[in-house]
Amino acid sequence: MFPKPLLAAGLLTAAALPAAGEGLDDAVTSFALDNGMQVVVVEDHRAPVVQQMVWYRAGSADEPKGESGVAHFLEHLMFKGTDTMAPGELSATVAANGGDDNAFTSYDYTAYFQRVAADRLELMMKMESDRMVNLRLDEGDIATERDVILEERNQRTENNPRALFGEQMSAVQYYNSRYGVPVIGWKHEMAALDLDDALSFYRTYYAPNNAILVVSGDVDPGAVKALAERYYGAIPANPDLPDRLRASEPPQTAARRLTFRDARVAQPYVSRSYLAAERDPGAQEKAAALYLLADILGSGTTSYLAERLQFDEKLAVYTGAFYNGTSLDKTTFDIAVVPQEGISLQETEAALDGALADFLREGVDPEQLERIKLQLRAAQIYQLDNVDGIGNRYGAALAIGLTIEDVRDWPGILQAVTAEDIMAAAREVLRPESSVTGWLMRDQEVTQ
Amino acid sequence: MFPKPLLAAGLLTAAALPAAGEGLDDAVTSFALDNGMQVVVVEDHRAPVVQQMVWYRAGSADEPKGESGVAHFLEHLMFKGTDTMAPGELSATVAANGGDDNAFTSYDYTAYFQRVAADRLELMMKMESDRMVNLRLDEGDIATERDVILEERNQRTENNPRALFGEQMSAVQYYNSRYGVPVIGWKHEMAALDLDDALSFYRTYYAPNNAILVVSGDVDPGAVKALAERYYGAIPANPDLPDRLRASEPPQTAARRLTFRDARVAQPYVSRSYLAAERDPGAQEKAAALYLLADILGSGTTSYLAERLQFDEKLAVYTGAFYNGTSLDKTTFDIAVVPQEGISLQETEAALDGALADFLREGVDPEQLERIKLQLRAAQIYQLDNVDGIGNRYGAALAIGLTIEDVRDWPGILQAVTAEDIMAAAREVLRPESSVTGWLMRDQEVTQ
Repeated sequence: MFPKPLLAAGLLTAAALPAAGEGLDDAVTSFALDNGMQVVVVEDHRAPVVQQMVWYRAGSADEPKGESGVAHFLEHLMFKGTDTMAPGELSATVAANGGDDNAFTSYDYTAYFQRVAADRLELMMKMESDRMVNLRLDEGDIATERDVILEERNQRTENNPRALFGEQMSAVQYYNSRYGVPVIGWKHEMAALDLDDALSFYRTYYAPNNAILVVSGDVDPGAVKALAERYYGAIPANPDLPDRLRASEPPQTAARRLTFRDARVAQPYVSRSYLAAERDPGAQEKAAALYLLADILGSGTTSYLAERLQFDEKLAVYTGAFYNGTSLDKTTFDIAVVPQEGISLQETEAALDGALADFLREGVDPEQLERIKLQLRAAQIYQLDNVDGIGNRYGAALAIGLTIEDVRDWPGILQAVTAEDIMAAAREVLRPESSVTGWLMRDQEVTQ
Repeated sequence: MFPKPLLAAGLLTAAALPAAGEGLDDAVTSFALDNGMQVVVVEDHRAPVVQQMVWYRAGSADEPKGESGVAHFLEHLMFKGTDTMAPGELSATVAANGGDDNAFTSYDYTAYFQRVAADRLELMMKMESDRMVNLRLDEGDIATERDVILEERNQRTENNPRALFGEQMSAVQYYNSRYGVPVIGWKHEMAALDLDDALSFYRTYYAPNNAILVVSGDVDPGAVKALAERYYGAIPANPDLPDRLRASEPPQTAARRLTFRDARVAQPYVSRSYLAAERDPGAQEKAAALYLLADILGSGTTSYLAERLQFDEKLAVYTGAFYNGTSLDKTTFDIAVVPQEGISLQETEAALDGALADFLREGVDPEQLERIKLQLRAAQIYQLDNVDGIGNRYGAALAIGLTIEDVRDWPGILQAVTAEDIMAAAREVLRPESSVTGWLMRDQEVTQ
């Protein structure tokens, strides 16, 4: 739950930056293939490299009940072979061509990517389109790779009290939504995943009409289109692709708390999560206000919580607030406070609640808001240097149902948020009834 | 969550009762039809009446995600017509014959029953078997009956803070199991239930190979078999009946708490639930120990919690402990304590925890255990007078996968439980890490 990477924006003067929404449009071309596959091309000719990403609109929250982890399991299995490609051949080919490749799974999507020299794009498309439909798996692959993902869970989660704590927090936060189940899966369900589970997920969701191709780098949109039609366009749409139905949350009307004890905890802390609205197509204003609220409350040493709890009251060594609205369903707004040695979690939580209550009374400091907006504009410019980041931004947004227009509008919407918008969002999101408060504790800690 | 009906056993002397397991076997005959339908006949010739029950191994925990309430919705819709039966005709026929009929839905099953004069059994089988496969529904039925179930939720849940509190408790108790979703459904999902949802559940689960027929009363097993073969035996099995896969719980490693405030609360109280083992085929010993533990801790005024919190410490006006292990998956062991006026929920909870800790140290009072076992034997005899109860007992048990043997063994297993078994079960179940503590509060209450 923390720390998440903080925005690494330097300090710039306002004069050095373009005004809100000005001159920052990415060179984006978008079209659809006849089989329904969406294609986005982001031109960037500064270096002769290209990144191909294929995003499937299928993540852990789309898994059948009892099969948690199958989306991520399939992501691993996708590096096995096809009729014409040996197991591992795709990655080996990328490496032999001096590139790199990988994949990742989230609640709402699974994505595969390669970064290679621009003239290798066709080869990448040939291979990526091949494994979209021709994957060949056998029981041996299943047994081997299941051990790999179990070991991955072991390393990332079982051996990490913070991760285990986060799992319990999410499970308590969501009553109905699959976001309460970890992306990597519950261990007992991972251990039972089999070939049928993997193939069923693959055949249901891996199809051009459920995929988004994002090509960014030193490419010509016309050439990309011709290649995409040749390789991906040849694959028929899956006519049985199910509607993307998600179980949404009922009213959350009870403030929840949990305590998680683990002898391995190095640093006890208080975590608080609130159920929060997500970015929706054509309606990103509330998410934008929450985004800025997180920055104001808990991003960096000049944030409200840092000034109050770290510097004024000297109770905490770290404070943070986090919000990422790029989510298909309702998400969370999170706060973490790590107390100074000798300060109890009870005192820490009371101080956090006191600070939040005061913030709701005092409102937003206009100077801080301006400073944050300036930093966002700066960050946006830096982002232009990162062609991978652009691919990620478009891919993730489109995979959760946002449009290219929404992605382009987002920086301007952030800049247009007012102090009043932020306070309205704060009053709406900071409701005890929809919150979970967690204490991560060492075994020997007393509760009160 | 409370109060549940308490065991209404009178006081009998040991001498008046048969010994454990002696002479109490029900007159039960059991067989299966060729299409896989299980049939249980319980003879009771004391009165010329019969009860027919059909139990489907499909309840709310078998619903597809996002369609909560569809099992119960279908239960309502089953009283609409078929090709040969007008809407409401079945119930009208039962009433015209001086009988009564109804249905109920739970997490693990849905059951339909009629009580009529014994010579009307064939008519009941004709009608019940007809609606197993020939139900006819239209959009008008859906619209009407959806309003009915929404109003039912309104009356039973929305207007009842205890019920709303219980829903939040269950949602927090279960991370993965569908037992965290209310049987009647989340309101927003009920409002979206449509004809397809109802028919899909019906076609998937309503079939002879997923049903249990329980006929109890003044009947001859041979005659019942002939009728069952004629009416139910004619229906083909559903070859696509899915395996009964349930999402089971991951490790619960964080003690949870919630507070639920409602201005309509007449009587604040503390509720505690613990994740608990269920009765399993051939392995009911742990459940039997939990069953007795609930009696010892919190059934009636001579229970441990009552003596301690109501009479010694005079903090509580009511205490109760509840466990019903007749469940397909892990269930809960529940405790409720209602404080005296002027006693805070904080004090109440502390007193409860103190009492539980002392109980774990002190162990079971052997005299209390003997008294409870005696009451159970008495209750068992009274149960023989209740032919409906016998039908329920067999139907519910078979619907969750227990056998007739398990049902017959249960009283003997209860009698064989030792004080040590109970304490071992208590130590296993009363784990803070797998518990939820809830405070049902009036709006004006202070938390601490």
